[in-house]
Amino acid sequence: MAGRRTRRTRVERFDPELSSTGGSTVREDVLAVEEPLEVRLGSSPYVVTMRTPGDDFDLVAGFLVSEGVIWSADHLAAMRYCAGTDEDGRQTFNVVEAVLAPGVALPDASMERHVYTSSSCGICGTASIEAVHKVAHAAVADDDTVFKRELVAELPDRLREHQAVFDRTGGVHAAGLFDATGELLCLREDVGRHNAVDKVVGWALRDGRVPLRGTVLQVSGRASFELAQKAHLAGIPMLSAVSAPSSLAVEHAASAGLTLVAFNRDGHFNAYGATHRIAS
Amino acid sequence: MAGRRTRRTRVERFDPELSSTGGSTVREDVLAVEEPLEVRLGSSPYVVTMRTPGDDFDLVAGFLVSEGVIWSADHLAAMRYCAGTDEDGRQTFNVVEAVLAPGVALPDASMERHVYTSSSCGICGTASIEAVHKVAHAAVADDDTVFKRELVAELPDRLREHQAVFDRTGGVHAAGLFDATGELLCLREDVGRHNAVDKVVGWALRDGRVPLRGTVLQVSGRASFELAQKAHLAGIPMLSAVSAPSSLAVEHAASAGLTLVAFNRDGHFNAYGATHRIAS
Repeated sequence: MAGRRTRRTRVERFDPELSSTGGSTVREDVLAVEEPLEVRLGSSPYVVTMRTPGDDFDLVAGFLVSEGVIWSADHLAAMRYCAGTDEDGRQTFNVVEAVLAPGVALPDASMERHVYTSSSCGICGTASIEAVHKVAHAAVADDDTVFKRELVAELPDRLREHQAVFDRTGGVHAAGLFDATGELLCLREDVGRHNAVDKVVGWALRDGRVPLRGTVLQVSGRASFELAQKAHLAGIPMLSAVSAPSSLAVEHAASAGLTLVAFNRDGHFNAYGATHRIAS
Repeated sequence: MAGRRTRRTRVERFDPELSSTGGSTVREDVLAVEEPLEVRLGSSPYVVTMRTPGDDFDLVAGFLVSEGVIWSADHLAAMRYCAGTDEDGRQTFNVVEAVLAPGVALPDASMERHVYTSSSCGICGTASIEAVHKVAHAAVADDDTVFKRELVAELPDRLREHQAVFDRTGGVHAAGLFDATGELLCLREDVGRHNAVDKVVGWALRDGRVPLRGTVLQVSGRASFELAQKAHLAGIPMLSAVSAPSSLAVEHAASAGLTLVAFNRDGHFNAYGATHRIAS
């Protein structure tokens, strides 16, 4: 599937040093692929999201965790690619059907998702403000894992060292799951930062690891409310971001007992919410 | 409304040079506010989006342009804040009702948006892949505006010079609309990059400026498909991004006749799609 994640394209490069060619040169460039993925629950359309192809079953599983629909591997009976062909009749691998296990409730019809979520959208699907906050089946407040300060400060570099697509395209976000010793458990990349997190959570769910006690999730971008809620729903006690947090992400971390780290760069970082997990 | 855009919070700063305090200090920090906005069309719930408060009517108007629902100021009969109170009974200013003018079609019910879009989500609302591509009422292919190469290369700096919230919080995205002489027409910021663009487009629509011929939109982040489509729907012939484009953004630019500039930094940039608008 790796060949579907990047695509070559023609680009005109404008460079002030290239005066001999009128200032621009035409060349080939490698871009991160962005394509729509349609998710069906049973046979009903559920959501369309823009994503980088690859790890699609992880993405769907993680998305359902982030929606609060499932929180255990045995809640998912099956996933498969269904019909979906391009103009030449080729399978596009852009439609995935998920089948919930018997007894697992479908999402409330009032929360039904007639949605096209963008590549960076994570938890679309509710009609009113009240439904923005999902019910978490995993508790993180009682997770007493301790993370060394030095390790936390190293996470962005460890994530970057392992990134595969980013170096080639400059256009994807990454999410990496680490344990308290700093070992990388799973890394995923996507044009959408929420997708990268869903792919990690979905991998863990399918591997029987949710709730993800004792782990820390490092992301390449900002810490939004959605990412804080995704970490909470997956039972991850610490979320670390390279860039700024939003006000609502900080409020959610405080109320959920989540450790939120942000502005994590150059060996310094800020911590919000349950900061007691960070030890010197 | 400016006071609603940032919020002070307690932060624990971990710094390797602070060994005398055990490595951390507690202080106050300014964060960008992220709050849900519920949009109603008439009296029906339409969408919930996470956004930075402020310019809410511009956001709603621009969102409706990006959805292909409206493309002229007279398509909007009214907008107002409706009931929506917090636990203390205070108006939250987090629910906006938009009333379409007589004769303007409501969005297709099959595209109805029972949606909570994330702060960076732009064009949520369709149930199938086919509906991802909106019908644009504005054409950009025949816009023969020419943009000087030097000006294009300066846009990121010009945007940054004008940014208000970012310097304080490090946590918002910006979108700036410029004319071909480099004059800034409108700048908006938001925790979500798609919201920043919708706020600019909504400002222009309400000011009778859509389609936005002869303009260039500079954004602070990546160039995704959604942003390329938003520019196209608003009639903006050139989109410039500081970071990478996605494959689908490039494909959309080529098919729509849009000039897509990306990796615009340090005086260099890449151009895709209709590159003929860039002159030396």
